[in-house]
Amino acid sequence: MSHNTFGHLFRVTTFGESHGPAIGCVVDGCPPGIALTEADIQTYLDERRPGTSRFTTQRQEADRVKILSGVFEGRTTGTPIALLIENEDQRSKDYDAIKDKFRPGHADFTYEAKYGIRDYRGGGRSSARETATRVAAGAIARKVIGNVRVRGALVAIGDDWIDRTKWDWAETRRNAFFSPDADKAREFEAKLDAVRKSGSSIGAVIEIVAENVPAGWGAPIYGKLDAELAAALMSINAVKGVEIGDGFAAAALSGEENADEIRIGNDGQPVFSSNHAGGILGGISTGQAIIARFAVKPTSSILSPRKTIDRLGAETEIVTKGRHDPCVGIRAVPVGEAMVACVLADQFLRHRGQIG
Amino acid sequence: MSHNTFGHLFRVTTFGESHGPAIGCVVDGCPPGIALTEADIQTYLDERRPGTSRFTTQRQEADRVKILSGVFEGRTTGTPIALLIENEDQRSKDYDAIKDKFRPGHADFTYEAKYGIRDYRGGGRSSARETATRVAAGAIARKVIGNVRVRGALVAIGDDWIDRTKWDWAETRRNAFFSPDADKAREFEAKLDAVRKSGSSIGAVIEIVAENVPAGWGAPIYGKLDAELAAALMSINAVKGVEIGDGFAAAALSGEENADEIRIGNDGQPVFSSNHAGGILGGISTGQAIIARFAVKPTSSILSPRKTIDRLGAETEIVTKGRHDPCVGIRAVPVGEAMVACVLADQFLRHRGQIG
Amino acid sequence: MSHNTFGHLFRVTTFGESHGPAIGCVVDGCPPGIALTEADIQTYLDERRPGTSRFTTQRQEADRVKILSGVFEGRTTGTPIALLIENEDQRSKDYDAIKDKFRPGHADFTYEAKYGIRDYRGGGRSSARETATRVAAGAIARKVIGNVRVRGALVAIGDDWIDRTKWDWAETRRNAFFSPDADKAREFEAKLDAVRKSGSSIGAVIEIVAENVPAGWGAPIYGKLDAELAAALMSINAVKGVEIGDGFAAAALSGEENADEIRIGNDGQPVFSSNHAGGILGGISTGQAIIARFAVKPTSSILSPRKTIDRLGAETEIVTKGRHDPCVGIRAVPVGEAMVACVLADQFLRHRGQIG
Amino acid sequence: MSHNTFGHLFRVTTFGESHGPAIGCVVDGCPPGIALTEADIQTYLDERRPGTSRFTTQRQEADRVKILSGVFEGRTTGTPIALLIENEDQRSKDYDAIKDKFRPGHADFTYEAKYGIRDYRGGGRSSARETATRVAAGAIARKVIGNVRVRGALVAIGDDWIDRTKWDWAETRRNAFFSPDADKAREFEAKLDAVRKSGSSIGAVIEIVAENVPAGWGAPIYGKLDAELAAALMSINAVKGVEIGDGFAAAALSGEENADEIRIGNDGQPVFSSNHAGGILGGISTGQAIIARFAVKPTSSILSPRKTIDRLGAETEIVTKGRHDPCVGIRAVPVGEAMVACVLADQFLRHRGQIG
Repeated sequence: MSHNTFGHLFRVTTFGESHGPAIGCVVDGCPPGIALTEADIQTYLDERRPGTSRFTTQRQEADRVKILSGVFEGRTTGTPIALLIENEDQRSKDYDAIKDKFRPGHADFTYEAKYGIRDYRGGGRSSARETATRVAAGAIARKVIGNVRVRGALVAIGDDWIDRTKWDWAETRRNAFFSPDADKAREFEAKLDAVRKSGSSIGAVIEIVAENVPAGWGAPIYGKLDAELAAALMSINAVKGVEIGDGFAAAALSGEENADEIRIGNDGQPVFSSNHAGGILGGISTGQAIIARFAVKPTSSILSPRKTIDRLGAETEIVTKGRHDPCVGIRAVPVGEAMVACVLADQFLRHRGQIG
Repeated sequence: MSHNTFGHLFRVTTFGESHGPAIGCVVDGCPPGIALTEADIQTYLDERRPGTSRFTTQRQEADRVKILSGVFEGRTTGTPIALLIENEDQRSKDYDAIKDKFRPGHADFTYEAKYGIRDYRGGGRSSARETATRVAAGAIARKVIGNVRVRGALVAIGDDWIDRTKWDWAETRRNAFFSPDADKAREFEAKLDAVRKSGSSIGAVIEIVAENVPAGWGAPIYGKLDAELAAALMSINAVKGVEIGDGFAAAALSGEENADEIRIGNDGQPVFSSNHAGGILGGISTGQAIIARFAVKPTSSILSPRKTIDRLGAETEIVTKGRHDPCVGIRAVPVGEAMVACVLADQFLRHRGQIG
Repeated sequence: MSHNTFGHLFRVTTFGESHGPAIGCVVDGCPPGIALTEADIQTYLDERRPGTSRFTTQRQEADRVKILSGVFEGRTTGTPIALLIENEDQRSKDYDAIKDKFRPGHADFTYEAKYGIRDYRGGGRSSARETATRVAAGAIARKVIGNVRVRGALVAIGDDWIDRTKWDWAETRRNAFFSPDADKAREFEAKLDAVRKSGSSIGAVIEIVAENVPAGWGAPIYGKLDAELAAALMSINAVKGVEIGDGFAAAALSGEENADEIRIGNDGQPVFSSNHAGGILGGISTGQAIIARFAVKPTSSILSPRKTIDRLGAETEIVTKGRHDPCVGIRAVPVGEAMVACVLADQFLRHRGQIG
Repeated sequence: MSHNTFGHLFRVTTFGESHGPAIGCVVDGCPPGIALTEADIQTYLDERRPGTSRFTTQRQEADRVKILSGVFEGRTTGTPIALLIENEDQRSKDYDAIKDKFRPGHADFTYEAKYGIRDYRGGGRSSARETATRVAAGAIARKVIGNVRVRGALVAIGDDWIDRTKWDWAETRRNAFFSPDADKAREFEAKLDAVRKSGSSIGAVIEIVAENVPAGWGAPIYGKLDAELAAALMSINAVKGVEIGDGFAAAALSGEENADEIRIGNDGQPVFSSNHAGGILGGISTGQAIIARFAVKPTSSILSPRKTIDRLGAETEIVTKGRHDPCVGIRAVPVGEAMVACVLADQFLRHRGQIG
């Protein structure tokens, strides 16, 4: 119900604005006895951290996480785990120019319409800075789901797609784009440099893969694993579309093509001959890899002037200065991983509750 | 939390299997004093009802709805509204052949994996028959949101898309496909006849448009209007992808192209010069039309034999006889409308609760 | 969130009015594979059924339950279990006199104040008739919690308390009052006959005991087992107080008296030397018997005229005719048992989810 | 669902242990535009703060609250309000003696049974220290419900009750016991001094009164105002019983006595001639004062040795040293007020959502 909480048994409540004193989250329902340190969480925060390459915002944030509760002598206790990340590099003055103007594509207009008040500094609550807390929660979720492995990759920038035959997971952590295709990563460099220098921006598509999910997680009808993944991924800033498995391309298949036939493998276990379904049937995991993709629109902060209005209803123009990611989709990779991990942790606990 | 409930203040709990005695739902949180009759609901059920053309399943179901509670002297009382639809045309014997086999693409395998037991008749709980109860609930949701108008259209069958320049809403209720393009509807007839006769199936893309939604509905961060739409639409049987506004195409745009600029209209109200965002920014409605699309995979029930396994783990083949929709996406149009209406009703009540 | 739902993983949604066509509930989250028949449920409904003695309402209701979903070949499937009980003996005309008047002590005034509309027949949704659906759900909850035994007894009518030294559980099902004290039951007969004949009513206190609950169920801080029991019992019609263990009497104890000391029993397991705590410490079960008591006010329907107002705001008097329980607390015994069983089933599943 | 969250639209999630770095909470769903400063919250925290008299624990905590989010330029923004209170005076060494022993009456045994691990320092999560965060949230809730006034008083220590004819609300803030009876407060001093010096403890009863609640708040059946108050108050540490209005005494009344008759007052509004119901009928407020009482057991930390066992299952004895409240019920007064305020804020927003 709560607007700022997701999950049911593994439940994450986040708080904080881009330019307030701190952001953070409370993770409730984590099983007890799990080894957990701040370093375990920091590893993932560092992947999302701004300023690690010239292709992301130059805002300097250490994003140092503190565990405030729920961990005793290095292990979770089953009580709520509060995580705090202080905001450090706030240049609120950068935002005076947009105080009274609505940046097109941003949430300025809608927050004002809804609440009649907004913290305009850096987008306030609507800033992608909030996603740092998701990544922190995701680090805990990964511990809950044990040997389930959740990895993400950027598969397109603009309409430029990676070559799937060159997919190398290790490569995703070697280039600045989380690209699994090393050659394409080099192309992305040139492409993004041009975008960045022109003060423009561009969108991206991210793919998240979860392996080792056993068959049986998820639940009909409104607790479907794919429905919850869709909500989780669509809740990430700037996301406009979500697909599972073949996604929109499935609409163009025949029933014969789309059927993932089942055989028995050498180990006596069911083996699917294909995975058009993306590892989910009827909202429940099949045991195959879970595959989800999401589309991120281009960063709305650009240097070209755009027509807009101000709070008083007067027509005006706006140029969004400040420090921005030219392709906000890049740093969405660790965020997408975190969301998938959180959904899986929640589904795992719910499954264990109902089925035993 | 509940797997079979969606919504928070406008809350729908559904129940029932394809071949049990009845299906139904309980709508809780509906405001009091709203005029409501069974006929109001029946109108929408009739749009989803099977057997209305040769392009849908020939199962004969009147889908006659009964109101069991929550309405007194023709008006809602604020107490839960229970709706019941009895199952009539159940040919359970049709399903003996699949009792012990898992139909590829269906939820047979996953329900068995999760629960260790399943009502195999017609897919049991995983049957699209459950969506009749959503349509019934959606009819009530429409009453709650007053002059918000929610309409749906089928925009593609397979990779064959309608021509948007020929869009005519009235046409969607004149042809068997909910196509807004009359010419394309005629092409669809031939296409579907071929699919149907060959015992094959095909996918589709549906678009739902909600007009007159005021700016300000929805909420950060996990109660985002688009996140809830994504979950609601992805929860419909056979859906594999969801988009808002430009959706995946937004990833290929530049920031300049994607920005929906704002002007002041003749009535002194904000006017957007475009609607790439699909009426939602930061998870909150902009006042523009809400636009959502979803992709439906081809019906998994086909006449060509597919390889599969049985409950004992032996390899086998299966042919899915019985009565099926060759393109389950067609009847997904009223279901998609209903889900969008329910999400909006819920967001409306929550907005009114928090903002007053 | 939903007003008409309780529970989280074991979740019950009820619907129906006293004089509508039917009442019922949907039980969601029940584990699969549990043997369940209508007879299993009917047994408990029969204990709550009206008209079984001269001390309860003479309304004749068979309260015959039908299972509409969620059970296949005699076993639960993990999908929602819908239960339906048709209303049979509705004498709605009895209520014309109260159509426009607010009966003191009843919910007439408050429903009108809240909703501006109400089904006045027999109290509509606020009727204790709704509790039949709780009893039905409770029958399923008992199956979920296996060898946990939940039993209830009436321990006082008015200020007349049973003698605890005469406590005999078997006796509770032999007399018309669920009294565990056979001698006191005979006194209750005379007492209630007098109350009944004078057209008056009287209150009662009920005690529910749950045995074999393992240590560890329940959870801090707002999911405390005792907090959920308090809500569940207070939600029963006419209940005005709830106690756990020594309850209000604990306030008068010294810390030394109140401490339940712990020893090791012959079986090597912890044994408490007393149970002032009622089996719950810090919101979590200790392994001792869970003991909860609740107070039921006298039935508000009485034959003496009471001063009230009508819907138009005019002062008037009212006499509540119709068929009523002179002591509504009697039939609250099986309802209290059902609520405790439902809370325990839910806590069991949640515990299993988080702890494994 | 979440164990550490309460409320639905006005939603509070708390975290923190007695001897961790900090405790705090996240208040989600607060309406926007409300003036709110740290001082507004501090006022109420100071009432609950330890060490203000010799009758409460001598632990020195400033309980200084920091607002981390959700407030911009002195007003709430509608986004989550995170509050942080750092722990200062932690003498964790005091607890080495109880590290491996279970203190009778405390949650040590049950936390261990449930989680297999516990932060034993000061009771960890089960410490009443957590209630400081509730008081902080309650300060915000009071702002939400505007002119509804929530006040609490201690009405009994042990079996020594105040004289209701001497009730003076102003007095509750003048003595160390929140007693509305000044004479009785003097008696309490002597009584508590004796308890304190003997190293014993004693229980108490607290009464919370909410005035100016309009008729119509609350909701059937499981969202009843009294059911939610019962859960909220029972969730406070050491509470063993909750009553609404006449509570358990109502069981001893006749229907004639219990009926709160209704007349029309000089202002044309309904007036009740009595308030046995405590301002709630059918789970919905009547417009009268809401009256709730709760019983607090004696503090379990006492200086007399009690028999117990240790983590290894060996029998032993324990004396609870450290700094404790001899009557934990005293500081429960502001906590009870806060819980009632939070329940009312939530019910107000939910009412506004459904009814408009």
